Amino acid sequence: MSQPDPKRVKTDDDAPYELIYWPVIPGRGEFVRLVFEEAGVPYSDVAQNIEKGMNTVKSLTSTDNIGDEHNPPALAPPALKHGDLLISQTPNILLYVAPRVGLAPKEGNGVYHLNEIVLTILDGLVNELHDTHHPIAISLYYEDQKEESKKKSQYFIKERLPKYFKYMQRVLDAKTSGEGPWLYGDSLTYADLVLFQAVDGTKFAFPKSTEALKKSGEYDGVFRLYDAVKERPNISKYLQSDRRRKYSEGIWRYYPELEEE
Amino acid sequence: MSQPDPKRVKTDDDAPYELIYWPVIPGRGEFVRLVFEEAGVPYSDVAQNIEKGMNTVKSLTSTDNIGDEHNPPALAPPALKHGDLLISQTPNILLYVAPRVGLAPKEGNGVYHLNEIVLTILDGLVNELHDTHHPIAISLYYEDQKEESKKKSQYFIKERLPKYFKYMQRVLDAKTSGEGPWLYGDSLTYADLVLFQAVDGTKFAFPKSTEALKKSGEYDGVFRLYDAVKERPNISKYLQSDRRRKYSEGIWRYYPELEEE
Repeated sequence: MSQPDPKRVKTDDDAPYELIYWPVIPGRGEFVRLVFEEAGVPYSDVAQNIEKGMNTVKSLTSTDNIGDEHNPPALAPPALKHGDLLISQTPNILLYVAPRVGLAPKEGNGVYHLNEIVLTILDGLVNELHDTHHPIAISLYYEDQKEESKKKSQYFIKERLPKYFKYMQRVLDAKTSGEGPWLYGDSLTYADLVLFQAVDGTKFAFPKSTEALKKSGEYDGVFRLYDAVKERPNISKYLQSDRRRKYSEGIWRYYPELEEE
Repeated sequence: MSQPDPKRVKTDDDAPYELIYWPVIPGRGEFVRLVFEEAGVPYSDVAQNIEKGMNTVKSLTSTDNIGDEHNPPALAPPALKHGDLLISQTPNILLYVAPRVGLAPKEGNGVYHLNEIVLTILDGLVNELHDTHHPIAISLYYEDQKEESKKKSQYFIKERLPKYFKYMQRVLDAKTSGEGPWLYGDSLTYADLVLFQAVDGTKFAFPKSTEALKKSGEYDGVFRLYDAVKERPNISKYLQSDRRRKYSEGIWRYYPELEEE
């Protein structure tokens, strides 16, 4: 076949990593931050400057944006700049970064197994949790779709949360999860960081339901892995730093009424 | 770093490709089928036998499934078996297959650019369209969430459909889209097949709205690409064969009331 990209972009692996994401909230940018923090690899984070962050994201998501000489346009943040390369979509950024910073194999079937686990957690648990407070339209306020949110949350808590926790537990019970608390193989990979963030956000948004899952004793591996990530020296330092944003708006929001019987 | 997967699975590139997906509906399996059909690469499709197909998918999605010696368990179909390897998640299967059958570069930045475009179309246009008829819970019938479906569809038609069509048009307007009608580079890639199927399903589910987008003249590149894929000799033969399922249930459903003013 002919190469679809005749002008293949050169990236310089020594180039700085630049994360582009909304300021203030943790959001999907958090999955990318955790990878750099665990690996101890320097990265710049435009969200640290609120005004510059807002402007950068707005210009990224403008409908006038048709990319540049090397890159197609992104639809939404997070995006990552690395040399001439600019890529978006959370699982895609992780797929690119993780093997370069030692948190995923560079080749072989592990690439696809890890991508599969990450896509399942992000597309499932994370996106569906977001939709519990925005089931009708993301352009409407939560207050204008509160009734539908309550209805969706009841099914989310009863059916979807256990489904995804069971899935994560099954991956941990699989033979491909080796020694230690990790999802895949014998050492920590970026999939473990994704699980950590997904569970951490779920704890914030649905604290009672997450506590009930923990108490059931059916997902001990999931909560053990969550704790193991939280105790990693670099992650622990990061979580105590002001680089870690507090939950507020965005994907993970706490509306106590969504958990009431 | 240590390899996260010490027992790296050997795949045999001569091994047969085996698609596992629900029988009867086109669904997400269709994105995988189109890649094999365009490439002219043989694959088996368990969905062609309704009973065997149902049983295979049920055993894949069973909560007792904890994978096998080489693979973690899948949450949902489609899945692909290739030698000892079993992988799931549509964009992940495409990422694995497309470079092996000549529909994507094997390395370089094109890998990530194509994955980004595909994730944006699948996570955005395809998943959101599904949710128009299941905004509250996938365990409920459409009839039991009809009112909410109508509400969500109004926003989908007014805001989300144009957003995604504009995004696809912007990718076509980018410098990374070269000669010809294709999204990326100078020749057809698997991203073009994903766009084709996403637009085809949208035409079925929201025919009036898609026609209005076409008539607006703002997305001519998108519809030109749609036609160009449809006219590819292998795709054209496939679409006329009984291997191509008719739309019915699944993601793309036609409920005329969802398009009414």
